[in-house]
Amino acid sequence: MTQANPAHPRQGLLIVISGPSGAGKGTILRRLFERRQDCVYSVSATTRSPRPGEVEGKNYHFLSLQTFNDWIAQDRFIEWAHHFGAYYGTPRAFVEEQQKEGKHVVLEIDVKGGAEIMAKVPDCVSIFLTPPSWQVLEERLRGRGTEKQEQIAERLLVARTELKNMEHYSYTVVNDRIEEAVELVNSIIEAEMARSSRVYRDKVIQF
Amino acid sequence: MTQANPAHPRQGLLIVISGPSGAGKGTILRRLFERRQDCVYSVSATTRSPRPGEVEGKNYHFLSLQTFNDWIAQDRFIEWAHHFGAYYGTPRAFVEEQQKEGKHVVLEIDVKGGAEIMAKVPDCVSIFLTPPSWQVLEERLRGRGTEKQEQIAERLLVARTELKNMEHYSYTVVNDRIEEAVELVNSIIEAEMARSSRVYRDKVIQF
Repeated sequence: MTQANPAHPRQGLLIVISGPSGAGKGTILRRLFERRQDCVYSVSATTRSPRPGEVEGKNYHFLSLQTFNDWIAQDRFIEWAHHFGAYYGTPRAFVEEQQKEGKHVVLEIDVKGGAEIMAKVPDCVSIFLTPPSWQVLEERLRGRGTEKQEQIAERLLVARTELKNMEHYSYTVVNDRIEEAVELVNSIIEAEMARSSRVYRDKVIQF
Repeated sequence: MTQANPAHPRQGLLIVISGPSGAGKGTILRRLFERRQDCVYSVSATTRSPRPGEVEGKNYHFLSLQTFNDWIAQDRFIEWAHHFGAYYGTPRAFVEEQQKEGKHVVLEIDVKGGAEIMAKVPDCVSIFLTPPSWQVLEERLRGRGTEKQEQIAERLLVARTELKNMEHYSYTVVNDRIEEAVELVNSIIEAEMARSSRVYRDKVIQF
């Protein structure tokens, strides 16, 4: 449990999580949110159309190109980028409000976005999630059985690029066994909240 | 559990623990060693005489002044100092051998010694242990009932000085409830072993 003094609400962390497809980000984050009610997921904004089943405000905030442009002009994104013909961005207000309320905000983001966040928010906690080996990654991607050979090859290529950026993250969590990986992410959150700089900032203790 | 690949033994941490009398260092370290077999206590060397009940190699390594001087000349201490008419030092060989074998070596040391270790071993993990308030510290010190008024006043004065140095430590652990404080020290160890720099150095994962 985070040591907190109810008289002084503590500020939550901004947690950046990256890692290639097959690292198990989805499963680990699901378990983390089940376990810790003080973690919230940052929903990205995008200009692309919703895919079947995607829900506004849950999967994405779906914005018009005009609105997205306005938000950029108003500095309402912590980071934004253009991929595959659409814009994607992390809305600033949600992140900052939740942190103020003591929630740890989790950004699931690619290594390019991760680098941008790390540069703009040096205080963020960056975690790279990786499968235990290339072989396991390949097995996990092929094992899904929902994708064509070509899509798998493409995903493997992207994974290679992602893995090259591992060392820029503060932490590397190897997802060999899910329970251990979740436990480790939990430990990282606890440890980061015990950093003297944060303990001071939040006036957890004063003499 | 620390994620380790048995083919590549990992290097243990050097953990510096400081904090005033009354912070509960002794109890917390005892619990930590019970819980984690991979933690070992660094026994200091001293030129002072053993007090009744003190055991050579357990409480201290009792050295002659001549031997202590030789060890200084031979760079066999990570740090050493002179207090109250005697010399005290941290023998280097034990620390480095244990770390190589994957043990986390715990140094219980005052803030002056802590500052010296941090300067010489930037990779060390520094933890300041503190009681939840000055009032609790005072109660704990008076509650021992084994010391005279004057000794208590002296300890309180030393405690004030120690507490001023809290912010130089990477982590501040508030010892309100012992179990939570031990759990937090455990989380700090797990998180530090997941630092990308250490994961790389130990070749835990390679692509």
